[in-house]
Amino acid sequence: MTDPSRPFCAAVDWGTSSFRLWLLDDEGTVIASSSSNEGMMHCAGTGFAPVLDAHLAKVGASAGTPVLICGMAGARQGWLEAPYVEVPASLEALPTQAIKIAGAKNDVRILPGISLNDPQAPNVMRGEETQLLGAVSESGNALVCMPGTHSKWVEIENGVVTRFSTFMTGELFSLLTKHGILQHAVEEKAVVSSDDAAFRSALKRTEGQAHAALSGFFGVRAAQLLGLETRGDGAAHLSGLLIGGEISAARELFGKEGKVTLIASEPINALYSVALEKQGFQVVSKDAGEASRAGLFRSAKRIWSR
Amino acid sequence: MTDPSRPFCAAVDWGTSSFRLWLLDDEGTVIASSSSNEGMMHCAGTGFAPVLDAHLAKVGASAGTPVLICGMAGARQGWLEAPYVEVPASLEALPTQAIKIAGAKNDVRILPGISLNDPQAPNVMRGEETQLLGAVSESGNALVCMPGTHSKWVEIENGVVTRFSTFMTGELFSLLTKHGILQHAVEEKAVVSSDDAAFRSALKRTEGQAHAALSGFFGVRAAQLLGLETRGDGAAHLSGLLIGGEISAARELFGKEGKVTLIASEPINALYSVALEKQGFQVVSKDAGEASRAGLFRSAKRIWSR
Repeated sequence: MTDPSRPFCAAVDWGTSSFRLWLLDDEGTVIASSSSNEGMMHCAGTGFAPVLDAHLAKVGASAGTPVLICGMAGARQGWLEAPYVEVPASLEALPTQAIKIAGAKNDVRILPGISLNDPQAPNVMRGEETQLLGAVSESGNALVCMPGTHSKWVEIENGVVTRFSTFMTGELFSLLTKHGILQHAVEEKAVVSSDDAAFRSALKRTEGQAHAALSGFFGVRAAQLLGLETRGDGAAHLSGLLIGGEISAARELFGKEGKVTLIASEPINALYSVALEKQGFQVVSKDAGEASRAGLFRSAKRIWSR
Repeated sequence: MTDPSRPFCAAVDWGTSSFRLWLLDDEGTVIASSSSNEGMMHCAGTGFAPVLDAHLAKVGASAGTPVLICGMAGARQGWLEAPYVEVPASLEALPTQAIKIAGAKNDVRILPGISLNDPQAPNVMRGEETQLLGAVSESGNALVCMPGTHSKWVEIENGVVTRFSTFMTGELFSLLTKHGILQHAVEEKAVVSSDDAAFRSALKRTEGQAHAALSGFFGVRAAQLLGLETRGDGAAHLSGLLIGGEISAARELFGKEGKVTLIASEPINALYSVALEKQGFQVVSKDAGEASRAGLFRSAKRIWSR
């Protein structure tokens, strides 16, 4: 067993509403881990340092263990702003632009996000760049799809992020079904399967036609009023429209087929895999949590291995 | 002055959250009118007949004045369900399919809505069909845009509704700015002008590219994080994306340029006029309230003029 008193570093994924820490040895193996809902929103009130210290104590990290953080802790409203690195942004160079928390007991650093300062397509990411570091090879070319509340699509050329887009797919699903008229047409906490007929049918209608998502949302309700579907079909129908629309739009934006790297967790991974394959992509799947951890470790190695 | 004791009919637009009644003479001139927020939602609790009777008394309608109603009072959860007429639906024939309230003191009838029972594009309208009757000539061809919470686009051939689409444009704006992350990027009760640079710029980006709306929503926030726009630009930016995306999607669906009949009220009329003209349409504007009243009158004439 590895000696937990001599970890290489603590790696922290500090999101808007979640905190996740892994204590890693110098090969990236997990010695111990800890997670909670003490995300940026929570810590804006309580402060960030006490939360980090409590988790370090909980996993038994020895004094002086260096800490590398990614995510919203580096936002303007976070612990300390880690300014965005503009595209074209070399993934390999990101760790060198991490900022250091002054006066902390340990060497604590926060990785920067990436921005696209184009008035025609302004965009930012914070946290996803670390998943890219963990999932994409140093000098590789890739088109990456990272589904979520705000799905990111990222184009990488020779290890450099050249451009990216954000789709508010998860947020739209939540808004439409929690606060809008479709709340009557979608069951709460419904679990969508990629085999659901309503999901497949909506994917088909949006295939190569992003506009069919915009004109299709109301149809989730209309189909039920007309007796063509039941409330049990609502979540699958809407998911299919949103995911199919996102993929069609991304295809228009990035003009690519071929291979796509899908960084996601279950159950969303399965839905996107099917949807991407239907639109002609070959999918290489990576787990989102593992990508974060691997990206933090790769960055920590670059910072602290001399 | 016309004798209010001898009106031709009372015309009622009974929506989800609003009630509007006009007492009309036999030339369609308004003798008196009354409105309130006693829409379908309100009346589901109190009953519909007492609300109608109170408004008829208020405008001094003589006993026995016939009443013609359009809108959500005819929904399943309304006063009495007026079943949808399926497309292809002749506008001229709609009044003959109005249903009669049994046991009412007056001759009270509710106009039906129109449905599109296509599993690939299920859709319904209730209330808009009456605006079409008031704004489109009997045997005309038209492409009609009716902006709102749920914008309708309707294709009419020889006075027959052949197909239509619904865009949840107004609802999306409301959901995104009231409950989502964009609430921080859009001022409450902001008034958007068609001259706003952020509106025009968003229209340009979505012109012929409905997908740019889906990939653009997050940019409303990103533009402000990056200092490219201010919070004062948020409402105009988002309105431009939603309206531009809707029009681009409708162009793909209906494959038309040329003339479009825009049935709307201010201030939304001005925004859509500019957006439609930018995408090559010649706009014929009609006021939404007047279209409802004219459609009810045209229908009443058909029912009660023998």
